[in-house]
Amino acid sequence: MATLGDIGVAATINILTAFAFFLAFAILRIQPVNDRVYFPKWYLKGLRSSPLHGGALVSKFVNVDFRSYVRFLSWMPAALRMPEPELIDHAGLDSAVYLRIYLIGLKIFVPIASLAFAVMVPVNWTNTTLKRSNLIYSNIDMLSISNIPTGSRRFWTHLVMAYAFTFWTCYVLKREYEIVAAMRLHFLASEQRRPDQFTVLVRNVPPDPDESVSELVEHFFLVNHPEHYLTHQVVYNANKLSELVNKKKKLQNWLDFYELKYSRHPSRKPSLKTGFLGLWGNRVDAIDFYISKIDRLTREINLERDKILSNSKSVMPAAFVSFKTRWAAAVCAQTQQTRNPTLWLTEWAPEPRDVYWDNLAIPYVSLAIRRLIIAVAYFFLTFFFMIPIAFVQSLANIEGIEKAVPFLKPIIEVKVIKSFIQGFLPGIALKIFLIFLPDILMLMSKFEGFVSRSSLERRSATRYYIFQFINVFLGSIITGTAFQQLDNFMHQSANDIPKTIGVSIPMKATFFITYIMVDGWAGVAGEILRLKPLIIYHLKNFFLVKTEKDREEAMDPGTLGFNTGEPQIQLYFLLGLVYAVVTPFLLPFIIIFFVLAFVVYRHQIINVYNQEYESAAAFWPDVHGRIITALIVSQLLLMGLLSTKEAAQSTPLLITLPILTIWFHRFCKGCYEPAFVRNPLQEAMMKDTLERAREPNFNLKSFLQNAYIHPVFKGVEDDESDPAVEEFEEEPVLIPTKRKSRTNTPLPSKYSGSSSP
Amino acid sequence: MATLGDIGVAATINILTAFAFFLAFAILRIQPVNDRVYFPKWYLKGLRSSPLHGGALVSKFVNVDFRSYVRFLSWMPAALRMPEPELIDHAGLDSAVYLRIYLIGLKIFVPIASLAFAVMVPVNWTNTTLKRSNLIYSNIDMLSISNIPTGSRRFWTHLVMAYAFTFWTCYVLKREYEIVAAMRLHFLASEQRRPDQFTVLVRNVPPDPDESVSELVEHFFLVNHPEHYLTHQVVYNANKLSELVNKKKKLQNWLDFYELKYSRHPSRKPSLKTGFLGLWGNRVDAIDFYISKIDRLTREINLERDKILSNSKSVMPAAFVSFKTRWAAAVCAQTQQTRNPTLWLTEWAPEPRDVYWDNLAIPYVSLAIRRLIIAVAYFFLTFFFMIPIAFVQSLANIEGIEKAVPFLKPIIEVKVIKSFIQGFLPGIALKIFLIFLPDILMLMSKFEGFVSRSSLERRSATRYYIFQFINVFLGSIITGTAFQQLDNFMHQSANDIPKTIGVSIPMKATFFITYIMVDGWAGVAGEILRLKPLIIYHLKNFFLVKTEKDREEAMDPGTLGFNTGEPQIQLYFLLGLVYAVVTPFLLPFIIIFFVLAFVVYRHQIINVYNQEYESAAAFWPDVHGRIITALIVSQLLLMGLLSTKEAAQSTPLLITLPILTIWFHRFCKGCYEPAFVRNPLQEAMMKDTLERAREPNFNLKSFLQNAYIHPVFKGVEDDESDPAVEEFEEEPVLIPTKRKSRTNTPLPSKYSGSSSP
Repeated sequence: MATLGDIGVAATINILTAFAFFLAFAILRIQPVNDRVYFPKWYLKGLRSSPLHGGALVSKFVNVDFRSYVRFLSWMPAALRMPEPELIDHAGLDSAVYLRIYLIGLKIFVPIASLAFAVMVPVNWTNTTLKRSNLIYSNIDMLSISNIPTGSRRFWTHLVMAYAFTFWTCYVLKREYEIVAAMRLHFLASEQRRPDQFTVLVRNVPPDPDESVSELVEHFFLVNHPEHYLTHQVVYNANKLSELVNKKKKLQNWLDFYELKYSRHPSRKPSLKTGFLGLWGNRVDAIDFYISKIDRLTREINLERDKILSNSKSVMPAAFVSFKTRWAAAVCAQTQQTRNPTLWLTEWAPEPRDVYWDNLAIPYVSLAIRRLIIAVAYFFLTFFFMIPIAFVQSLANIEGIEKAVPFLKPIIEVKVIKSFIQGFLPGIALKIFLIFLPDILMLMSKFEGFVSRSSLERRSATRYYIFQFINVFLGSIITGTAFQQLDNFMHQSANDIPKTIGVSIPMKATFFITYIMVDGWAGVAGEILRLKPLIIYHLKNFFLVKTEKDREEAMDPGTLGFNTGEPQIQLYFLLGLVYAVVTPFLLPFIIIFFVLAFVVYRHQIINVYNQEYESAAAFWPDVHGRIITALIVSQLLLMGLLSTKEAAQSTPLLITLPILTIWFHRFCKGCYEPAFVRNPLQEAMMKDTLERAREPNFNLKSFLQNAYIHPVFKGVEDDESDPAVEEFEEEPVLIPTKRKSRTNTPLPSKYSGSSSP
Repeated sequence: MATLGDIGVAATINILTAFAFFLAFAILRIQPVNDRVYFPKWYLKGLRSSPLHGGALVSKFVNVDFRSYVRFLSWMPAALRMPEPELIDHAGLDSAVYLRIYLIGLKIFVPIASLAFAVMVPVNWTNTTLKRSNLIYSNIDMLSISNIPTGSRRFWTHLVMAYAFTFWTCYVLKREYEIVAAMRLHFLASEQRRPDQFTVLVRNVPPDPDESVSELVEHFFLVNHPEHYLTHQVVYNANKLSELVNKKKKLQNWLDFYELKYSRHPSRKPSLKTGFLGLWGNRVDAIDFYISKIDRLTREINLERDKILSNSKSVMPAAFVSFKTRWAAAVCAQTQQTRNPTLWLTEWAPEPRDVYWDNLAIPYVSLAIRRLIIAVAYFFLTFFFMIPIAFVQSLANIEGIEKAVPFLKPIIEVKVIKSFIQGFLPGIALKIFLIFLPDILMLMSKFEGFVSRSSLERRSATRYYIFQFINVFLGSIITGTAFQQLDNFMHQSANDIPKTIGVSIPMKATFFITYIMVDGWAGVAGEILRLKPLIIYHLKNFFLVKTEKDREEAMDPGTLGFNTGEPQIQLYFLLGLVYAVVTPFLLPFIIIFFVLAFVVYRHQIINVYNQEYESAAAFWPDVHGRIITALIVSQLLLMGLLSTKEAAQSTPLLITLPILTIWFHRFCKGCYEPAFVRNPLQEAMMKDTLERAREPNFNLKSFLQNAYIHPVFKGVEDDESDPAVEEFEEEPVLIPTKRKSRTNTPLPSKYSGSSSP
């Protein structure tokens, strides 16, 4: 058992680590050479350009303004300064609402912690149960519920506190749900005209022997939504075309590279060998070679495109149908079209960026089967993932390797290598699995057939949370694999399960405190350092970057990562709520995590992450639901714990808590969830009327015509007209010594987190 | 343990009882004096009139045509002869689909029973486990799974059978869901123009300081559904008026009685005393007295009606809004109107007859709280209902009574009375509770705030089923009160619960066989006898009936009673599915029940029951869901049973069964449930177009104007113009000897179940 001193040492170490990360970040971020790693968002917005273009040679790579080193934590207030409305404008509602999750953490736990320290710590501390017992205990246990004698009347304090904490949490949750729902509706209402406001995604268009899908869709909606139907866009199966376009892009890039080379050294015409990797074969003129190759590919692409557009087989039985008014789109998205509810399924179209094109054509029965398969697969993944890993681990020991590849024996027997294998290999299989887990879960969601990237991420987040709950939370409390736990639970009564877990809860407090410090504090501080993107960017920059476009692509802004980030936060909610009554000493550590994470992620959202889609905070019901789950788990565990403490009179009072909480959840669901699922007609009508009055002659049809074209077609058509691409084509040179025109563009927001020199 | 012989005796007794009931029914139904008890449906339809008007004096009361006694089972083929479409026309879709539940029972259990007897009975019979053991066993157990030695390979048969039965049940269920959904859609589509097709019920209209509810509703829908809104009807709080109208009806009845008396004996003017129950007070002229009283009440009613119509406070925040087309109504019913999902709630309006007026004005928050209260109350009702009953029982013993009322002691000590009290009183409390249970459950549903009578009945049925499942099914298998069971289950592991129940299953087979014979066979045969309505009708006829209208009211056709009938059928499904693999010997008894019940209820639906509303088979998802539940319960119990038989290798195979079943349920839910909840736009549009073409000038507004008026207002206005009432006013005389004009009207359907002389 760790004492207060031990915790202090661990805290010091972790605080120092976090501090070191922050220091490293402060130094690295103000170096111009790292500018694209730490401020990619501004580059993507086109509001900042490479600092490499101007200034003296040294100051282009290294910051020589020493004053800027002094203010090394200046990014923190800067990150907090941008007001929420501007943040929504800058990074989207998703990001702004995501940050509110951390705020909720603070809103819930700061009052709870104050109350707990004011009331419960004295109540726990002034007992002598542990002193008189022969158990080994630490000072922290003195502060926890363990220090109270069994059957004591003092448990009434904990009971009252459990009620107080529940009510406070529910109050905060309800208020927050209300605010977020209002934010979402306001965001949707105040937005500019967007194609998805007028568009509905129709799936499972039934096959028709006489009509093409396009004709069928048009006729169906002309008949069933006359006066409202405007236009539609069928969905093509463009996987092959997509491949070709990517290939062309690569070749174009090589062409750019050689043209650049030629323009730098006009004396030597670049050439290359046509064989494998350019190592052998005929030597030809590189520029001509690529021009001819691109020409051929362009023709091929045009052919393929024509084929797709003309061949009725490449049309998938799905379409984006647009209406004349928002009202009509809202009506169509919320109603059932035909008597067969598995055909002509309509739903609100996701944002064009948010569409996951591959899944648009899955028929209903297949969807149902896929869901079953994934449910079973996920069950096995969660409970039996240790089996293959244990198998790999058993293979990856010294004897196993020696047996499999006997000729490696002399090498393996070298002491350094042997100890490396012994110490490292068994763990690496698990590590690799855990690193790839989010991707595996994402693959599962993709297979399941969701049609928008936001819903893919939401589903993956749910799965990741359950995995963490079972394997991290329960796995740490009751040691053993998930399967062993499952087996235990199957053989225990419904009464005993909360007891078993509840009893172990106080004993694991110090473990979780350490976990919070390592995973939470140091992890968050590491997030801001972006070590991996930093290294990869510089490696790419050194070895691979040929053109400005390459540099653009080497810059990896990353995203918020809802599917991994949110479950991590939820684990802290779970720990906080479970330990609030049991060991309140844990709460300050969680509060520090929330503060730190809030600042760091606010900074990252402002300066780094690239928003790939906008779901208008559609994830909030999930967040709310998981905090409610944590609350219920905490109540059940407290019930289990108290029932072993012979405080049986508390059971009926404790049982009402989860019932009230579940009822509260259903109440909130009824009150606020529709705002995230359906679209109120009144709002749509209001916007329609306003717009008709303002722009009576707006040509909506042309506005919507190409909104939902597969990105590949767009790529083909717009490749040369894309404004971002154009900008780079205007100045494709990368010779810093020759031109001196542009320095850093001044930053547009006075609140932005940048403090580059 | 009952042997085959015992079962045979019990069967003989029950068959004889059923036979006696049928015989009594056959004799009683052809007596003209009972005509209104056994053919009330035809009276209500106006297709049959009292046989008392014609023929000789004797033949008016007793059937003297002895040939009709010979064909005493002739009603059975007659009941089966009416084809389903005509039945739907005659008794509504609800009744026709209700009968399909019995048909499903036959479709499921006849093939299962054949297969079980062909395969499993030989497999079970050819063992000697029971013979070699020292256990007491019966011949029936020789046929059951108990006869197979533990760890035997023969359990594979049961495993395969479990799969076969599951797949067959699911197949039948899916087909039936499909058929019923199609029937419902066809019924809704082929129906004549009905007000509820165009109307939406709007609840939770927010209060507005400037506008009345009526204005507010009109403005809201004119703005948000322009081009579609037609008219609306606000809902009045008319409870007081309703009371007054009922009072007036009673007085009117007395007036009729005295007028009749006077016309029979014109010499003596009827008079009465004005005091309590007419026992003392001034003697006045009865006719004058009632005329003046009715006059006063009529004025009061008019006043009250005007008050309600003029006072804005009596308008409830709810309205029935009608649209110009079915399409618009379908759109409005399926969409969310405003950003606050707890206001302006729209839903498909129930049929006018189906509206439960009292619940229309409950606000959203109150609804949520009511639901919580009822959930808790229902839990206590189900698990703790024995506590008050045991308390009453403890009071109702000899010593208790003697203590409470010592002066009764000499009477109680009389032997006959004493044994009566001892044998009868303790049981009577439970019996009374069980008789009132459906009413209690109905009250709960009413309190919960459902707005249609069909949904009230559906919810009550669900609750009754759960009660029966816990207290009858589980209560018989594991003896003990529900609370003791709950306590047991809480202290048992999830693994052990199916085992505990599963092990007892084979031992209870004979008990359930007896139960099926008593409750099922004799009970159903008793249903057709209608002993209670028969007795009550004749009592009323003898003592109370003053006018023809009274006689009309004394006739109690009853209804199908979905809230009690359906849960009873479901109990048989549960028994059949649970015992199909364990003791197939039980299946024939269930099949006989289904056959008998099908014929009896078909007869009753054709000739007796009065259909009070039409929900277009909206209850089918519930029926389907409960059969699925029974299937899953049977699978879990089989798993528990087999795991005690050391057939552990079967567990993984058995676990997949419930998973597949749950998946199948969700699949069916997705495929067919929307047909019962939502309204497809295509259908609505088709009907609209057709109707526009056929009757372009139909005045829909006047058609809908008064459709959703509170029945009390209708009563006041239409009282004198109601065709049924008019008919009785034309011949209000009840003197059989004076007129001789009418005999029984010939029955309109050649398939009708009647075979009256």
